[in-house]
Amino acid sequence: MSRRARILVINPNSNQTVTDGLAEALAPLTFETGPEIVCRTLEEGPYGIESQADVDGVAMPLARMVAREEADAYVIACYSDPGLHVCREATLRPVFGIAECGVLTALARADRFGVIAIKAKSIRRHLRYLRQMGLMERLAGERPLEMSVAETASGEGALIRMIQVGGQLRDLDGAEALVMGCAGMARHRRALEDELGIPVIDPTQAAVAMAIGAVQVA
Amino acid sequence: MSRRARILVINPNSNQTVTDGLAEALAPLTFETGPEIVCRTLEEGPYGIESQADVDGVAMPLARMVAREEADAYVIACYSDPGLHVCREATLRPVFGIAECGVLTALARADRFGVIAIKAKSIRRHLRYLRQMGLMERLAGERPLEMSVAETASGEGALIRMIQVGGQLRDLDGAEALVMGCAGMARHRRALEDELGIPVIDPTQAAVAMAIGAVQVA
Amino acid sequence: MSRRARILVINPNSNQTVTDGLAEALAPLTFETGPEIVCRTLEEGPYGIESQADVDGVAMPLARMVAREEADAYVIACYSDPGLHVCREATLRPVFGIAECGVLTALARADRFGVIAIKAKSIRRHLRYLRQMGLMERLAGERPLEMSVAETASGEGALIRMIQVGGQLRDLDGAEALVMGCAGMARHRRALEDELGIPVIDPTQAAVAMAIGAVQVA
Amino acid sequence: MSRRARILVINPNSNQTVTDGLAEALAPLTFETGPEIVCRTLEEGPYGIESQADVDGVAMPLARMVAREEADAYVIACYSDPGLHVCREATLRPVFGIAECGVLTALARADRFGVIAIKAKSIRRHLRYLRQMGLMERLAGERPLEMSVAETASGEGALIRMIQVGGQLRDLDGAEALVMGCAGMARHRRALEDELGIPVIDPTQAAVAMAIGAVQVA
Amino acid sequence: MSRRARILVINPNSNQTVTDGLAEALAPLTFETGPEIVCRTLEEGPYGIESQADVDGVAMPLARMVAREEADAYVIACYSDPGLHVCREATLRPVFGIAECGVLTALARADRFGVIAIKAKSIRRHLRYLRQMGLMERLAGERPLEMSVAETASGEGALIRMIQVGGQLRDLDGAEALVMGCAGMARHRRALEDELGIPVIDPTQAAVAMAIGAVQVA
Amino acid sequence: MSRRARILVINPNSNQTVTDGLAEALAPLTFETGPEIVCRTLEEGPYGIESQADVDGVAMPLARMVAREEADAYVIACYSDPGLHVCREATLRPVFGIAECGVLTALARADRFGVIAIKAKSIRRHLRYLRQMGLMERLAGERPLEMSVAETASGEGALIRMIQVGGQLRDLDGAEALVMGCAGMARHRRALEDELGIPVIDPTQAAVAMAIGAVQVA
Repeated sequence: MSRRARILVINPNSNQTVTDGLAEALAPLTFETGPEIVCRTLEEGPYGIESQADVDGVAMPLARMVAREEADAYVIACYSDPGLHVCREATLRPVFGIAECGVLTALARADRFGVIAIKAKSIRRHLRYLRQMGLMERLAGERPLEMSVAETASGEGALIRMIQVGGQLRDLDGAEALVMGCAGMARHRRALEDELGIPVIDPTQAAVAMAIGAVQVA
Repeated sequence: MSRRARILVINPNSNQTVTDGLAEALAPLTFETGPEIVCRTLEEGPYGIESQADVDGVAMPLARMVAREEADAYVIACYSDPGLHVCREATLRPVFGIAECGVLTALARADRFGVIAIKAKSIRRHLRYLRQMGLMERLAGERPLEMSVAETASGEGALIRMIQVGGQLRDLDGAEALVMGCAGMARHRRALEDELGIPVIDPTQAAVAMAIGAVQVA
Repeated sequence: MSRRARILVINPNSNQTVTDGLAEALAPLTFETGPEIVCRTLEEGPYGIESQADVDGVAMPLARMVAREEADAYVIACYSDPGLHVCREATLRPVFGIAECGVLTALARADRFGVIAIKAKSIRRHLRYLRQMGLMERLAGERPLEMSVAETASGEGALIRMIQVGGQLRDLDGAEALVMGCAGMARHRRALEDELGIPVIDPTQAAVAMAIGAVQVA
Repeated sequence: MSRRARILVINPNSNQTVTDGLAEALAPLTFETGPEIVCRTLEEGPYGIESQADVDGVAMPLARMVAREEADAYVIACYSDPGLHVCREATLRPVFGIAECGVLTALARADRFGVIAIKAKSIRRHLRYLRQMGLMERLAGERPLEMSVAETASGEGALIRMIQVGGQLRDLDGAEALVMGCAGMARHRRALEDELGIPVIDPTQAAVAMAIGAVQVA
Repeated sequence: MSRRARILVINPNSNQTVTDGLAEALAPLTFETGPEIVCRTLEEGPYGIESQADVDGVAMPLARMVAREEADAYVIACYSDPGLHVCREATLRPVFGIAECGVLTALARADRFGVIAIKAKSIRRHLRYLRQMGLMERLAGERPLEMSVAETASGEGALIRMIQVGGQLRDLDGAEALVMGCAGMARHRRALEDELGIPVIDPTQAAVAMAIGAVQVA
Repeated sequence: MSRRARILVINPNSNQTVTDGLAEALAPLTFETGPEIVCRTLEEGPYGIESQADVDGVAMPLARMVAREEADAYVIACYSDPGLHVCREATLRPVFGIAECGVLTALARADRFGVIAIKAKSIRRHLRYLRQMGLMERLAGERPLEMSVAETASGEGALIRMIQVGGQLRDLDGAEALVMGCAGMARHRRALEDELGIPVIDPTQAAVAMAIGAVQVA
């Protein structure tokens, strides 16, 4: 492969701060001779993806963006994996969903995993999706922070709450690895892992690592 | 992280040709500023890993090698994932098994996967392991080449047989992605994928991509 | 309940012939003192729903129609249950998907069910959905007619092919009841059931029966 | 179909008050031009069905009643679905069990369901039956009222207890719909649903709605 | 335990030849200082247990026999395990069903098991029961002899047919152990095992071995 | 079979006191005319089997012992079933693992089982193994004593703690039978069963009963 491959990471919400956070979280996976990792905002997206309407509303815009933008692999960077299957239909290139990749990567690290959700009300959607993926057998549990996306991306207070919730997943539910159930928690990953002593997976990093594997051997 | 991270890929059999093949298969995942990928032969290993005794016989030697050799992540490069759990006990660093990573990576690409096995008699061991991993719900099928490891690593004839078996997995069993069920098939991956038109996963490449993700964010 | 309840059956494709066929299929479930059953075409829909883009493309238009049109219950009359969850978010009234109701009703009649699909390529979407519903354990099999929607709605030839495929589901796969995997096959239901000697479920009839149950006790 | 169809709802216990309650609960599903719904008491039945002996003891009497009484569909109105399979053997007409139909109908309304049981000791029998039906994946939980059948059918106190137990199923177990695990709770259904804000399914009403669907299209 | 324990093996059909066959099959498990093994015919039973009515019709008579006859453990010697749960309610002593014990014993010998059924039409009942037992994950397959019970108990021809069907279970379905799906096949067990080279389990022998374990430590 | 069969029960740890305890626990299963039951210590074993290294470290020594020592059946008497599959490869005779047999025997007694573990940290290994066995659907729960093996084998205090933990499994988790999750708890079995009123299975006794069944009909 003479030219450098290109991985397009799409933030399906229209919040540019989230997109910037993705770029920062993915910097350690950017190598001089490796694939280019480009983070982009879906302009048609809502400011945040919280309801089912938010999820379903971005499916077609995402598919159009995938069809329109050239890349060697695509990553849908929202923990509900909106539009994943329609995007796969829109291109012959690999398309990764971060929820799927986050969970699968946790499974490569430990037997049973837990998920830290932002809100309780998204858990039922996640569970339905885990069932669709056929991965319920290894779920230890999912617990919510009950914070806003903005709060989770920010400072100390968010980390303290994550440590508390993550500790419950580890100690009460038996989780041996954790998945951060949102695209915007990456900045707390290492501190949380150090504190809890079990692997903590940022799903966007997980998806991009898999995308690197896919594009490099193509 | 100032120093370059180091991923140790261990070939549990003592066949240096297989180890050399691993190094070749992993070259596309080696980046100038990325982690160092080192492939090593387990000298105590048998010439090939075929029986349960071969699998169980290398578990403790692998754990000792993991405890002895410093690395930021370890990859056990045999499709039976020998000693995976005891190696994880021997280090605080991530340890990846290529069977687990190969299957999980296939799941990130398509709904149902098939496995190309070398021999029919290893399929029952693989099925038992898939059940342990809780991933049976997405298995389309597993079919054997019925060739020797040496034959599969070699030329044209092996590829023709893989296309035949892979086509059956795709057309008769409904597989939408394939996992190569051996550490030594990588050289045929791209041709097989081009021919069949569905993703084909080399499990060692899959595991190393996940390991890159793990060590870079550590 | 003084006024007569109203069940709105929405055909998500824009083919009015299909909508007319639904009305005909539902006539036996229309009772003088029972709920009104109204069949409507989603004008924004594609002429047929075949691809994932067709499915995902009607989700939001369906949700808007549900929000806009008053009814006591809604039925999404396409075997892919497009937009089911977003429609449920758009109203406090019950929303039924015909795929879900078709399968659930088959389960009320026999232990293992089979599905007659229009096309082979939709089977993988159906299987993923069955897994999401957690109902795979009772699936005997799904087999395609490999006809166009227009052909299946038409005469003698369609029935002959359905008898053939249904017979394979019964005899080779062990199905004890069948679900017609399309909204437009109802006119062949009784003949197929008589011929095969096992229950055959038209999914729209099944969904409307459940909707009658829901609105009458509300 | 020139004549009016006939649905025979059999109360397998000999308590005529329960049968009268069934008739009352099913009145909203009786339409002038729809099927006749006839509720009958199994005279050989015990006064209440609580033990396994009660369940197994009515199987053969039910089968004989089904063989003897003409109808277009039969409903076994006891939440243990006694004799369901032997009754199906005794007639070519559809036979519905209310436990099966109650759960299946809940699944058409929401992702995960809870069950309100009369007594803790019947829960193990219900769980075994849910496993037989292959529907455990969507069970949120089952909790007992620990009241007598007589108490549950009666007034205010029963409803208060149902609200309490139903609230626990919703809030602690994650149930998004509830099934009333007894044939005699129907009179509290609407109030319970209004209070909890999630669908509450009376299993006999659910079964009869399905039976209407079956007989009308026959 | 000063007195010798007593295991009561009940043949639920009224065919004394079958009961005599049971006694013969169990002779190797009768030890001088071990529990007494008594085989008895259920006089109310039908001549053979083939239909659901046969199965359900003996449940209560079996429960009465268990309540009436003193023993330290009971074995219901019919591969449909008729009345198992009601018999357990009728006594504080252990009650074993031979289908359950046959399958569980096969699972103690190999990973995946196959079942040799007498008739195709009983397979659906067996599958439903296996699902109830939660043991489907290890089922390789079930195939019928399509012979009468009388034929299977008899000579050379039965064995030849069993070898054929058992070979298909082993070679086509992947069974690594077989369960004889009837109480009357024991006389062919050893020859079949020798011929096929995988464990073959007679379910009555399996149940009695478990019963010996239970009564001896009581 | 003219000569007396021989069942070799191997204690994989090198603690002779445990081996002596096994012999005592198995005395009730030794019959004058039945198979000889010989308990032996694996001299290469560690003093106790607690870590994954302990489990994996005895696999090959066990396989060699099985290959070397003649017997009609072998029992691996450690609740992690170390080396079970490699031992099966080393002999044509049946090899039983006590964890597998303990759980399977509990399933022959009741619908849902609980496990009393010695230590919390072994529970994750047990759960992984139960998933491999495909038996999770009937697990009510597993709870630890948090005692040393030495403490559990000893007197009054151990029994009191077992009653407490077993009571939680029965009352909070819904277990209807219990498996003692260690080879060294047998002496408390009967007292625990009497106290809790549900079957309590000693896994070594369970495995030997199955082995008796296997060797006597061989």
